[in-house]
Amino acid sequence: MKGCQVLVTGGLGFIGSTLALRLVDEGARVTLADNLFPDHGGNRFNIAGYEDKARVQIIDVRDADAMAVAVEGKDYLFNLAGQTSHLDSMEDPSTDLEVNCRAQLSILEACRKRNPGIKIVFASTRQIYGKPDYLPVDEKHILRPVDVNGINKMAGEWYHILYNSVYGIRACSLRLTNTYGPRMRIKDARQTFLGVWIRNLLQGKPITVYGTGEQRRDLNYVDDVVDAFIQAAASEKANGGIYNLGCREVVNLKDLATLLVDINGSGEISFLPFPENLKRIDIGDYYADFSCIHHDLGWEPRVPLREGLRRTLDYYRKYLARYE
Amino acid sequence: MKGCQVLVTGGLGFIGSTLALRLVDEGARVTLADNLFPDHGGNRFNIAGYEDKARVQIIDVRDADAMAVAVEGKDYLFNLAGQTSHLDSMEDPSTDLEVNCRAQLSILEACRKRNPGIKIVFASTRQIYGKPDYLPVDEKHILRPVDVNGINKMAGEWYHILYNSVYGIRACSLRLTNTYGPRMRIKDARQTFLGVWIRNLLQGKPITVYGTGEQRRDLNYVDDVVDAFIQAAASEKANGGIYNLGCREVVNLKDLATLLVDINGSGEISFLPFPENLKRIDIGDYYADFSCIHHDLGWEPRVPLREGLRRTLDYYRKYLARYE
Repeated sequence: MKGCQVLVTGGLGFIGSTLALRLVDEGARVTLADNLFPDHGGNRFNIAGYEDKARVQIIDVRDADAMAVAVEGKDYLFNLAGQTSHLDSMEDPSTDLEVNCRAQLSILEACRKRNPGIKIVFASTRQIYGKPDYLPVDEKHILRPVDVNGINKMAGEWYHILYNSVYGIRACSLRLTNTYGPRMRIKDARQTFLGVWIRNLLQGKPITVYGTGEQRRDLNYVDDVVDAFIQAAASEKANGGIYNLGCREVVNLKDLATLLVDINGSGEISFLPFPENLKRIDIGDYYADFSCIHHDLGWEPRVPLREGLRRTLDYYRKYLARYE
Repeated sequence: MKGCQVLVTGGLGFIGSTLALRLVDEGARVTLADNLFPDHGGNRFNIAGYEDKARVQIIDVRDADAMAVAVEGKDYLFNLAGQTSHLDSMEDPSTDLEVNCRAQLSILEACRKRNPGIKIVFASTRQIYGKPDYLPVDEKHILRPVDVNGINKMAGEWYHILYNSVYGIRACSLRLTNTYGPRMRIKDARQTFLGVWIRNLLQGKPITVYGTGEQRRDLNYVDDVVDAFIQAAASEKANGGIYNLGCREVVNLKDLATLLVDINGSGEISFLPFPENLKRIDIGDYYADFSCIHHDLGWEPRVPLREGLRRTLDYYRKYLARYE
């Protein structure tokens, strides 16, 4: 990436900022686009110490004109901007559609018209699979999204694959599972349940597990996810590809909560019945088969769960006030 | 359907109007919503003789306020309005998104807020499968749309299924294959290639087959498709369901052209190389497994291909001037 012009949408967000800092360290010329919406993941503190090393543009991906200018001259676009909250998507489906569908389409149209040589890596989500028919879920699994967010992310992903296959604009999609680590949103569950758990733990409040906590999940530490983005960008083999991320360590939510309390040295877990609005979009167990990306790009997660959680807790112990 | 209040979007279009006339005949109180856009399928002549028996509203499904009023008090919504042209969707992806995604979402929101007791049957399309992995294609086949239209229709379908499962607004989706018959658009290939074939045949021009004409297709006569809509509306078992339509008679395009010429008594077939813009979105062979709808609703196509084509040719021989 050294010397390359790179645009990261959602660049002040959790994964976007972590990716951006890595790219800066590797010598790329990085522009971050973010709208800093309070309900989304952007946080200026995420790039603390790098303010002068990356260019920050406060623009909204829905602003087609601004995005058209932003993609010009870029070698790579890491396209991470999105509305990620499942509940928000049900309460305001229209905004979710604007961000996750319309904006994606207008970004791709801008690339087609102004910069067809760009390479795009799109951040998709395991959410689009819905409730799995089988485990681990591979990329051949049928898509059956259980919320508006999942439907719109599915469309957003497919626009990218389509523009790759029809127009030759190199693009690929990573279907992220639960990503965690420093810089994630912890003030609420809009990005991941784990954020709230960590905040509560550090504030001395109980961690809430809904139901019996037996739902299994795979989690990726953010640095591993950043590796995947960079490897996907660098590989021509990835073009047109859709890849699951995932992790060999599969854990149920009860054990995950217990592990967190253990690493923290103290903490309390409280079991509550599933709230109705969460229950109806719950997907039960999920974990991914990530052998495709391992095969094509050599990617695999390297940070063990315990180590990743430890680093995360250390980060928020230091910077909790910046994320509350 | 006798005495029921029914709304048909795309009601002046090919399938919408045929369905509407049938519903009027069955004693339903039918409102047709159509925007009569020149590039879409609406045509006032489609309801000739029924002008006083159905209520026609010239509204656009993208007009959220008008649609919210239109769904009020209705027992059934047959939701057929859509942008159907694959090529138009590539040239103007934004309009396709407005019609096939945003409008669908706002119709469903209107139903949720104003008429949650309504039953909806959505017109989806086999286009969302893309190039089949196997034949016949069943509903478990992965969705891999090859154009913007397919992506947006896929999202539109899923909004319906989601609103059924999350909010209990009864909805189901029919994945139509090539539908043909009286009232279809024949002035161009925006709705189906078969329309242009029939127009050319009746105008004494050659039928154009691209490539070798060996791509196989299944075709449904419009009256059979209307049956499926009505059966799906009437059945509680269909709620939340996604059903392929299809036909046991599978035919390749060359044989179909030959059959048309044969029924017509004369005509010429010309084979041309695939134009680039069609080639890149061509899906090769397609025919559906429709055993799900046969099993759940007892539906099956009744009109043999030769008979359907004969009726279609008869219709356009009479009314060609109304559709040119």
